[in-house]
Amino acid sequence: MTADELQRLLDAKTKPVGSLGRLEAIAVRAGAVLGASSSPWRASLTIFAGDHGIAVEGVSAFPQEVTGQMVANFLADGAAANVIAAALGIPVTIVDCGVRHPPANADKLVDLRRGPGTANSAREPAMSRDDAEGAIEAGRAYGAALECEIACFGEMGIANTSAATLLAHKLSGLPVKKLVGRGTGLDDARLKRKLAVLGQAAGRTGALSPIDALAEVGGFEIGTMAGAMIGAAGAGRLVLVDGFIATAAAALARAIEPGCAQAMLHAHRSAEHGHGALLEWLGAEPLLDLDMRLGEGTGALLAVSIVRAALSLFGMASFAEAGVSGETAPER
Amino acid sequence: MTADELQRLLDAKTKPVGSLGRLEAIAVRAGAVLGASSSPWRASLTIFAGDHGIAVEGVSAFPQEVTGQMVANFLADGAAANVIAAALGIPVTIVDCGVRHPPANADKLVDLRRGPGTANSAREPAMSRDDAEGAIEAGRAYGAALECEIACFGEMGIANTSAATLLAHKLSGLPVKKLVGRGTGLDDARLKRKLAVLGQAAGRTGALSPIDALAEVGGFEIGTMAGAMIGAAGAGRLVLVDGFIATAAAALARAIEPGCAQAMLHAHRSAEHGHGALLEWLGAEPLLDLDMRLGEGTGALLAVSIVRAALSLFGMASFAEAGVSGETAPER
Repeated sequence: MTADELQRLLDAKTKPVGSLGRLEAIAVRAGAVLGASSSPWRASLTIFAGDHGIAVEGVSAFPQEVTGQMVANFLADGAAANVIAAALGIPVTIVDCGVRHPPANADKLVDLRRGPGTANSAREPAMSRDDAEGAIEAGRAYGAALECEIACFGEMGIANTSAATLLAHKLSGLPVKKLVGRGTGLDDARLKRKLAVLGQAAGRTGALSPIDALAEVGGFEIGTMAGAMIGAAGAGRLVLVDGFIATAAAALARAIEPGCAQAMLHAHRSAEHGHGALLEWLGAEPLLDLDMRLGEGTGALLAVSIVRAALSLFGMASFAEAGVSGETAPER
Repeated sequence: MTADELQRLLDAKTKPVGSLGRLEAIAVRAGAVLGASSSPWRASLTIFAGDHGIAVEGVSAFPQEVTGQMVANFLADGAAANVIAAALGIPVTIVDCGVRHPPANADKLVDLRRGPGTANSAREPAMSRDDAEGAIEAGRAYGAALECEIACFGEMGIANTSAATLLAHKLSGLPVKKLVGRGTGLDDARLKRKLAVLGQAAGRTGALSPIDALAEVGGFEIGTMAGAMIGAAGAGRLVLVDGFIATAAAALARAIEPGCAQAMLHAHRSAEHGHGALLEWLGAEPLLDLDMRLGEGTGALLAVSIVRAALSLFGMASFAEAGVSGETAPER
């Protein structure tokens, strides 16, 4: 159904026209992807993990081994994304896209590795063009094969706000300074250093195609997520875009395959500084604004219930069906 | 546990300190009421319905019989609150607090009726002082007996934005003009008329005690909801406050029993004009802002998952438990 047809369905339901505000807009948007029929609206969360060579430049407040340690924490159900997903009944899958120190004997970890982390993009390309294309393709197949209607994608990777900043800069042309932020919590001195490092990395190359931008700045998990967004959208799923890094992946996905934008809803506005500028460039207005900046798909998880609530509105009784009187004529 | 103790628990978890923003503040607030132990966090929605004599003055876009028709719609699971609650797995109870034309043979309708709607408060008191006290007491017993940890309260009643505006005005001293709004969708001419009618009703009396304010302006469903908030808070439940009318009930509950404010979280910022001023007066910052103005507890329902997600954070692994490295020392 078209957006107009879906909105007309909602306008006949037993509520004043427009009284559910943005929830109606979400219903129309999600209904255009998933249809106006009833549930199930199964959701799933995938966390894509990868390491970044640029971490050696001191652009993160946490050491690089944290990526692998957090992957182990995800697999042990100990991280924020795990407990939130469990509280909401949403299954979680962890994908290794290129973690430097992955946990041993991790049976549940999905292997889409392209190497032990990217190279340091401040000095050289983060990955080969083959790896960039391979990450997108692996993600595309993964996203197409998901068993859910609502796909949440999150990420983990020390220094990946640096890669996301550079990728967003190359795709949008927005200045690095507008996109850079404190990530996991840099102080002023380290933020200044991050900005200098990213300026150096950005200056290594000029304008780039989307795939070349991914190859130059990384990362493996961002490219794989972008591919998964394209694959999920192509398979008729709704994609809930999480925070800053996921939005950079979404920008990459849209640059490669513009049609997938129709399948995307932006879950929340991150507290990471550059997210606002990137959202504005994409013309996206997120559902939630809770000052969160963790990643892992935590924002996307919180939006699932709102999307399900919005989709449920198509199941309401109409004024005619319920025998409810309509609005009285306005005074003249 | 105190708020400080709860925040220290969160600060040890495997995430950068503060990186979940307002979700952490919600966790601390809800944890202070429900504790930091694990689920179940059962939620329920109660919709309190009542009619308002002031409807005869033409202050609503819908005719008065819609209240009873919508009660029938609620009982048949056809309204927005029903389908959203069903999508989220939250049970719904409908309480008749004084509907003028209640549906016949409505077995599932809880009877806390105090009469066939209030009197017209533009000309006389909406109810007796006995009825005001009785509505609060009936609500208190209802709220205390609920079987849930998270209590959502909604309402239905043609012209109840008028009663809520008057009640909020009497409790806060804010001008009627700052609190009045379009309700279900008045045009400019009818909004002007509503403002004149409410000015007349407000001017009938001076400063009033909380119970006298309820008696003078109504309504039955607002008083019963305020009592239910007091009862639910007293029984250790978390109360999710919905939109403008529920916030007026919350203001009444707090005026009667200030301690119950600690148990309240405001779910959303309504598009109804007066809600912002009333929230500001109460010092409340809602979780969601989706431009909704339907009532029925629809906003409260959408906040349930966010509260459950917040409470789940206490179940995360700590850095020590998960063997995750902490932040590196900042540069000097």
